[in-house]
Amino acid sequence: MYIDGLECGNYDREVLTELRDGGLACITPTLAFWEDTLETMDAIGRWRDLERDNADLIRIAGSSADIERAHAEGKTAILLGTQNASPLADRIRYVELFHAMGLRVMQLTYNNQNAIGGSCYEAEDSGLSRFGREVVREMNRVGMVVDLSHSGERTGIEAIEAAERPVAVTHANPRSLYDHPRNKGDALVRALADNGGMLGLATYRNISGPWADSRRSWCEMVAKTVELIGIDAVGIGTDLSRKSGLPELEWMRQGRWTRTVQYGAGSASNPGKAKPVEWMGSTLDFPALAVALGEHFDQAEVGKLMGGNWMRFYRQVLDVR
Amino acid sequence: MYIDGLECGNYDREVLTELRDGGLACITPTLAFWEDTLETMDAIGRWRDLERDNADLIRIAGSSADIERAHAEGKTAILLGTQNASPLADRIRYVELFHAMGLRVMQLTYNNQNAIGGSCYEAEDSGLSRFGREVVREMNRVGMVVDLSHSGERTGIEAIEAAERPVAVTHANPRSLYDHPRNKGDALVRALADNGGMLGLATYRNISGPWADSRRSWCEMVAKTVELIGIDAVGIGTDLSRKSGLPELEWMRQGRWTRTVQYGAGSASNPGKAKPVEWMGSTLDFPALAVALGEHFDQAEVGKLMGGNWMRFYRQVLDVR
Repeated sequence: MYIDGLECGNYDREVLTELRDGGLACITPTLAFWEDTLETMDAIGRWRDLERDNADLIRIAGSSADIERAHAEGKTAILLGTQNASPLADRIRYVELFHAMGLRVMQLTYNNQNAIGGSCYEAEDSGLSRFGREVVREMNRVGMVVDLSHSGERTGIEAIEAAERPVAVTHANPRSLYDHPRNKGDALVRALADNGGMLGLATYRNISGPWADSRRSWCEMVAKTVELIGIDAVGIGTDLSRKSGLPELEWMRQGRWTRTVQYGAGSASNPGKAKPVEWMGSTLDFPALAVALGEHFDQAEVGKLMGGNWMRFYRQVLDVR
Repeated sequence: MYIDGLECGNYDREVLTELRDGGLACITPTLAFWEDTLETMDAIGRWRDLERDNADLIRIAGSSADIERAHAEGKTAILLGTQNASPLADRIRYVELFHAMGLRVMQLTYNNQNAIGGSCYEAEDSGLSRFGREVVREMNRVGMVVDLSHSGERTGIEAIEAAERPVAVTHANPRSLYDHPRNKGDALVRALADNGGMLGLATYRNISGPWADSRRSWCEMVAKTVELIGIDAVGIGTDLSRKSGLPELEWMRQGRWTRTVQYGAGSASNPGKAKPVEWMGSTLDFPALAVALGEHFDQAEVGKLMGGNWMRFYRQVLDVR
């Protein structure tokens, strides 16, 4: 049972077929980076259309039972997610309304500070705001994954403290293994794991550094992460971006907030879209990753890393009623 | 089992208690007149808060079973409704998203033409637009009541033709009994009934004329309406407005579309808020109305008029999955 904790890009029947052929039981696509309420509702509507048009391949999931049912039917469960709280329009009441519309994963901030907290790219991270505490608890109450991936370190740690359920970093790596602002310090990942939370390790080249050079070296990073926070808190969140190009990259980096050039997880010397690593070009490469992890882990452990841990986490976080 | 097909106003614990004490099994409150997507979501959020704060009195209903359960528990079911399609922001995909958030009744137009069709106050009624046909069918598909009350005559008749399920006029009277643009011509109300639809008769003074003078005369209007379209197509939609004042009246009449004075269902000689008829000041007056209808109808017929017909209609329209 393979699970990818976070992806983005443009999904069509070809990409959805890759999900099935890669054996993915569940993925979280990105429906919003800077999108507002209406634009995110547009995206949810598009996913409902995609589901109707590809009912043999996917099922939008609301619970762990939905994921298991999709998997039993040979389909991929889609756990709708956003990488920003922008859809909320700063309204606490919208948390349960977006839950009603199917949203199950929400990152507290994307690359910029918002009303909830600070981002990993801000010079000063405010920590979790008063509204932020309300949002985290409301997400806990309704059954939505709190995602800290792009949030600042302090905001992340305070969100873990404020949360009444486990929370997630769906797509980042330990900063002690590769130093990048998007990666997470040891204090945060340890608190995350202590809280029952999950760290989805990313294959995204810009935040993996040399670990991404080969499948083998990336598996070494997985092994070192397991040494750091234990076997039960680690999963995969590739950050794969299929069929997206420059317009999507510019939207992710600039949104509507600036006219300047922004590099996101890249840099002036590495400005463009990072090529996906060749050993994880699509979800079709999941089975080979499972095999490669076998060099470090036994069968049961590989099962946890490839999806079992996410399932345990989803049961704790989504199935609240 | 009493049902009020349409109300508006401000609901607090006192008004919700009146619903229960009046024996109301179900009402539809108005969440939007001109409100846009976000404002309507705010209103849905407020109703969810009201439900949590008054869980002993009300239950937001999504199906006929929810209404029956509420009634069995001595509570009033709330069928969330809007008097405009403004929440859709002209997006077909939002129909199912608002359904997911709990909306179950939507009027195609309020007092002005919109992208769906013409209103009863427009000099020229375009009829149902191309988008309007899509919206009616999508509402049928997801299980939402199509309400024609403020729509133009031609738009209404074309919506009845386009619909694949029964539709409703939740709050208006036959124009042949009282001539007012808000009331409906015989061709429309007959087509409505032939289609299995419902006409909710309004106690609102401005569109009832002399029939509203007494409970007894209003019951005569009910009897004449039953002569016109049969006993199975007639219900009650009071158009009661509790605890609302001038700001609400101005919003209903002017919205954000004009700076001129608008009289709505009133007139220059009758400009203000119409006083509710004294025999229907609140839903507490429903039991007395049931008694009065007994002068014209037998027990079973009174049951149909007071709520049974609405229940039959809701089963056909809401329970689509």
